[in-house]
Amino acid sequence: MERIEHRACFGGWQDVYRHESAVLGCTMDVAVYLPPQAEKERLPVLYWLSGLTCTEQNFITKAGAQRYAAEHGVVVVAPDTSPRGDGVADADGYDLGKGAGFYVNATQAPWSSHYRMYDYIESELPALVEANFPVTDARAISGHSMGGHGALVVALKNPGRYRSVSAFSPIVAPSQVPWGEKAFTAYLGDDREAWKQYDAVELVKGAQEKLPLLIDQGDADEFLHTQLKPQLLREACEAAGHPLTLRLQPGYDHSYYFIASFIGEHIAHHARALKP
Amino acid sequence: MERIEHRACFGGWQDVYRHESAVLGCTMDVAVYLPPQAEKERLPVLYWLSGLTCTEQNFITKAGAQRYAAEHGVVVVAPDTSPRGDGVADADGYDLGKGAGFYVNATQAPWSSHYRMYDYIESELPALVEANFPVTDARAISGHSMGGHGALVVALKNPGRYRSVSAFSPIVAPSQVPWGEKAFTAYLGDDREAWKQYDAVELVKGAQEKLPLLIDQGDADEFLHTQLKPQLLREACEAAGHPLTLRLQPGYDHSYYFIASFIGEHIAHHARALKP
Repeated sequence: MERIEHRACFGGWQDVYRHESAVLGCTMDVAVYLPPQAEKERLPVLYWLSGLTCTEQNFITKAGAQRYAAEHGVVVVAPDTSPRGDGVADADGYDLGKGAGFYVNATQAPWSSHYRMYDYIESELPALVEANFPVTDARAISGHSMGGHGALVVALKNPGRYRSVSAFSPIVAPSQVPWGEKAFTAYLGDDREAWKQYDAVELVKGAQEKLPLLIDQGDADEFLHTQLKPQLLREACEAAGHPLTLRLQPGYDHSYYFIASFIGEHIAHHARALKP
Repeated sequence: MERIEHRACFGGWQDVYRHESAVLGCTMDVAVYLPPQAEKERLPVLYWLSGLTCTEQNFITKAGAQRYAAEHGVVVVAPDTSPRGDGVADADGYDLGKGAGFYVNATQAPWSSHYRMYDYIESELPALVEANFPVTDARAISGHSMGGHGALVVALKNPGRYRSVSAFSPIVAPSQVPWGEKAFTAYLGDDREAWKQYDAVELVKGAQEKLPLLIDQGDADEFLHTQLKPQLLREACEAAGHPLTLRLQPGYDHSYYFIASFIGEHIAHHARALKP
């Protein structure tokens, strides 16, 4: 992994690394925040998955998470949201192709040759992080919007792998909303049965591990009633007996101003699980 | 003033307003953070002046100041860094023209018709803010790089107007460094005597009010030895008996990661002066 950015921040370092991804078949950039405690001890890791149009930069420049990561001694890893590069398929819209990997393994051409963000997040990235940084194998995962979907899906599909999971404004039921229907049709094909493995509302129905879900959602979010629909997850969790804390935050929208306002509480939540 | 952005943030509102500036002869955007206390009482105001290439957006998206403004009950006003619009003169470089107003009143064509950022910051903007928002006349001022220069100059030239002043990585002696020499030659002409009224190192020599200066400067700042040269201000302050706290912060560069790391201390410093 080649370090391409290195900036002092809250006593630690906000770095960005570049590496070749075997899973994705392209070069990827990933942001790593190392809090000051990382100089002396191995620390747990919070993975952050960003939303549509984002790269590894959005979260590290706008969320203000470093302060809380430094306070709690947690490494924060924020990858890009899709494969990148000239040879990688793309589409015209902001909601398909580059910047819109949806954290699935695509099975349909032309996407299937690079769009394997599920495997990248679930396996390749943690292995790279755990081989190259002073971290333990205690992991947490969170994300925003498309990345909130990704965090919920990766955690629900991997019992025991994450100590905690949270999300901001997640797409909880991609199979039932326009963003998800467009992306899943392209990446996974028309068979909706194949979509269920990447749909949090479907996954909680059969989840063996009852990992509590913490979700913050702004009630002034412009996508709340069309793309996000958190009540679908509430109903699924109630039916399955799956623990869910879903907080509707009055006045907040879909932006990083919302994330910045509550990321401190999320990092404290993850720190309690990561460092019991 | 027309509100063009309105986003919940740390219990308050991160807004952006658009208004016609009589001083600048153009339309200007200005960011205003109203902390939750603003719903019930009038609050003091911290003015933030941004650096080269910035608009009103950079500080509000990257510095994470809203958390501290909400904690201390301070309104934060962050204007754009130059006049804007089709009729406003510009230059090719990033360090002259739009995004590079340098907080002076230009006397030279073609700049003199719009580039009057000194008057805008000193008079028009505070008058607008104090007429339109729930604020008191208790004012503080801070800024970064070119904006740190602006904050120091505006405070030093207006005894009694600001309760406190601070800066991150300021251009303390624009008359003696390339950025300042280029801008001042264009905006003010070749007569270096005319430059002294906008040069903090010159202004401390005759400052009647000994308003303490708080400055943070990263020692890994890529512009430290060529454009910023804080030791010139230290020497001037020592010679004039002007109180200065100049902190060299090890490892930090010129970026918003540096500002984010210390803006909390600056806002606490201003809050102590604003709400004694």
